[in-house]
Amino acid sequence: MTALTSQPMPAKLIISNSQSDSNMFYATGFLSADDFVYLEYGKKKIIYIDDMEFDRASSEAIDCEVRKYTDYASGVHRNTFGSLLIKILKDSKIKIVQVPGNFKIKYAKILIEGGIEIDIKEPFFTTREIKTEDEIKKITQVQRANEKAMREALSILEKSKIRKDGKLSYQNKILTSEYLKEIINIEFLKKDCYSESNIVSCGKDSVQPHNLGKGPILANQLIIIDIFPKSKTQRYFADMTRTFVKGKATEKMKKMYMAVLKAQKISLREIKAGARPDLIQQKVEEYFNKKGFKTEEKNGKMSGFFHGTGHGVGLNIHELPNIGNRNKKPLKAGNVVTVEPGLYYPENGGVRIEDLVVVTKSGCQNLTKFPKVLEIKQLLKY
Amino acid sequence: MTALTSQPMPAKLIISNSQSDSNMFYATGFLSADDFVYLEYGKKKIIYIDDMEFDRASSEAIDCEVRKYTDYASGVHRNTFGSLLIKILKDSKIKIVQVPGNFKIKYAKILIEGGIEIDIKEPFFTTREIKTEDEIKKITQVQRANEKAMREALSILEKSKIRKDGKLSYQNKILTSEYLKEIINIEFLKKDCYSESNIVSCGKDSVQPHNLGKGPILANQLIIIDIFPKSKTQRYFADMTRTFVKGKATEKMKKMYMAVLKAQKISLREIKAGARPDLIQQKVEEYFNKKGFKTEEKNGKMSGFFHGTGHGVGLNIHELPNIGNRNKKPLKAGNVVTVEPGLYYPENGGVRIEDLVVVTKSGCQNLTKFPKVLEIKQLLKY
Repeated sequence: MTALTSQPMPAKLIISNSQSDSNMFYATGFLSADDFVYLEYGKKKIIYIDDMEFDRASSEAIDCEVRKYTDYASGVHRNTFGSLLIKILKDSKIKIVQVPGNFKIKYAKILIEGGIEIDIKEPFFTTREIKTEDEIKKITQVQRANEKAMREALSILEKSKIRKDGKLSYQNKILTSEYLKEIINIEFLKKDCYSESNIVSCGKDSVQPHNLGKGPILANQLIIIDIFPKSKTQRYFADMTRTFVKGKATEKMKKMYMAVLKAQKISLREIKAGARPDLIQQKVEEYFNKKGFKTEEKNGKMSGFFHGTGHGVGLNIHELPNIGNRNKKPLKAGNVVTVEPGLYYPENGGVRIEDLVVVTKSGCQNLTKFPKVLEIKQLLKY
Repeated sequence: MTALTSQPMPAKLIISNSQSDSNMFYATGFLSADDFVYLEYGKKKIIYIDDMEFDRASSEAIDCEVRKYTDYASGVHRNTFGSLLIKILKDSKIKIVQVPGNFKIKYAKILIEGGIEIDIKEPFFTTREIKTEDEIKKITQVQRANEKAMREALSILEKSKIRKDGKLSYQNKILTSEYLKEIINIEFLKKDCYSESNIVSCGKDSVQPHNLGKGPILANQLIIIDIFPKSKTQRYFADMTRTFVKGKATEKMKKMYMAVLKAQKISLREIKAGARPDLIQQKVEEYFNKKGFKTEEKNGKMSGFFHGTGHGVGLNIHELPNIGNRNKKPLKAGNVVTVEPGLYYPENGGVRIEDLVVVTKSGCQNLTKFPKVLEIKQLLKY
């Protein structure tokens, strides 16, 4: 009974760094590249950290008490960290801890050898799926930065000229995927954002949804720009995709584009609190089938529509909830998800259109304002 | 005996993504943001991966055989991944696996429940400490990009004017840490590099080695620029620090600067294969003490020299070997380490000078060419 009263709720433990581990940033609001300890039990939320980071953690961490390792043991380093950790838990009468699925085995070993029981909990913070107003505001800011970058890339496509060999030229140089990605990254930087990778893929590259694209951008070919920056300080992502053709799109390309646009409208109409993601995915698949856009495997390569309609976005670029065939759990108000149907055919190229929306009680609110046009003929006002 | 002959060497297993986990990139040379499986046993190195990533992995992975999950089980997803993993290991007659310290507990649980024994090995690849010629070439390229960015930042400091209030102005705006960091990041981008964070700290901020700096840059104050980009495609880091004063340095600042410069020279002279890192650290500490630069704690704040003289750099910004008091293991030829003594005093500010070197049989080769000057008086030729 003593054990029960001293630990009515399971303690939550993270040992990680908040630069690469979004749960740690979510828990603490404190950004650090080095592993530190977060312990939550009862109503207490405590950070245990190095002397060197104590001041910064104390001023930046949100709703957490910050303690130094050296309050427990002097000269804590790699070899003494284990005994310190066990002492902290035992002093707090904690015998069992909940940890996230990515908890490092080296720390798990210390806990197990110290007699602490481990319970893996995934998702670790169920509240992460439901964005607060503040989180939605931060994500929206990043989507604005994203649109600024898309606008810059589009401007260059608008201003570029079509050469006789079908390549584009901009400022007397051949326009490449690499150059557009650099321009996009510079725009991100100006808004305190960055991205590990961007997709600017053209022609046959655009047929593979994960192909980042490279080399010259070609006229009269489908160009997919899929960009997903992260705020450096606030840590939230945004995500958006547009598909363009510089020059003239074929009839087939236009039909693909219109079908993807319609499929996106269908999804946006279906999304609301209570809607089942798997059924939304089905609706999109049925629509493409009905319109004659088949999904099939040929020689080991998929064509048609073969990815999910959307995914959650927040402190991770891919997080819960997914909009796909395997998710039957109804959407909730406050979910932030992408809506990104696509069609990919080796002979035509790929089309994907992606917006970012917040699920509401009665529908969804689109956080994306960027216009949708296929052919780049003249300067688009935006 | 059968077990022994079928598994003479322990199998190595990583389940991770190579974007955030440098061991996975080191093992495969294949860059992916999604977790996949790497298994090494006997002379085999095998990647198991999603259908969607199979083509890219096949063309990009180095010295690895690439297999699809679906060769083992159709429709592999989150819920069936565990049984697939156990099947792969059992088919290969593997009963015990070596995993790195950051192996995720959710995967460890699957292994343990499937009857596989786990052995944590850290460092996982001991060869990572010894850089090949190719790795040194890649790191050197990043250091060149780093120097280009440092040059840009310095140019702006050179061109900026000192206002009456002690702030600097550049192009009629107050020059800030944020602006210099943006300029640095743009230079990184131009060389296919990026950085999560840069240090441009001035005056009292420069006293805390981890303070990233913010706000106006001030004349006649110590300015630390510590920058460490990573190549986006090749994934190696470089690292360099310079300390400047725009305007006039005090006598104390000059003395600190000369002492740090001399301490760096002492370290550089000591570094060679076989030298003990802890003794190098001691030499630096002794030199500072002898020169009257004391290291002490006052009101919970450290002053003097209170960090390691250096750290390994490679696919991680901080990796083995460390040059500090706790490392008695002799340096080896091929180690790439920073050499970065520093002095920090609340009343004067901080000075740190950092180069990146390769340890050789007889000494070290400095990968850093950027000049070292304290006062920015006129345009520096570089």
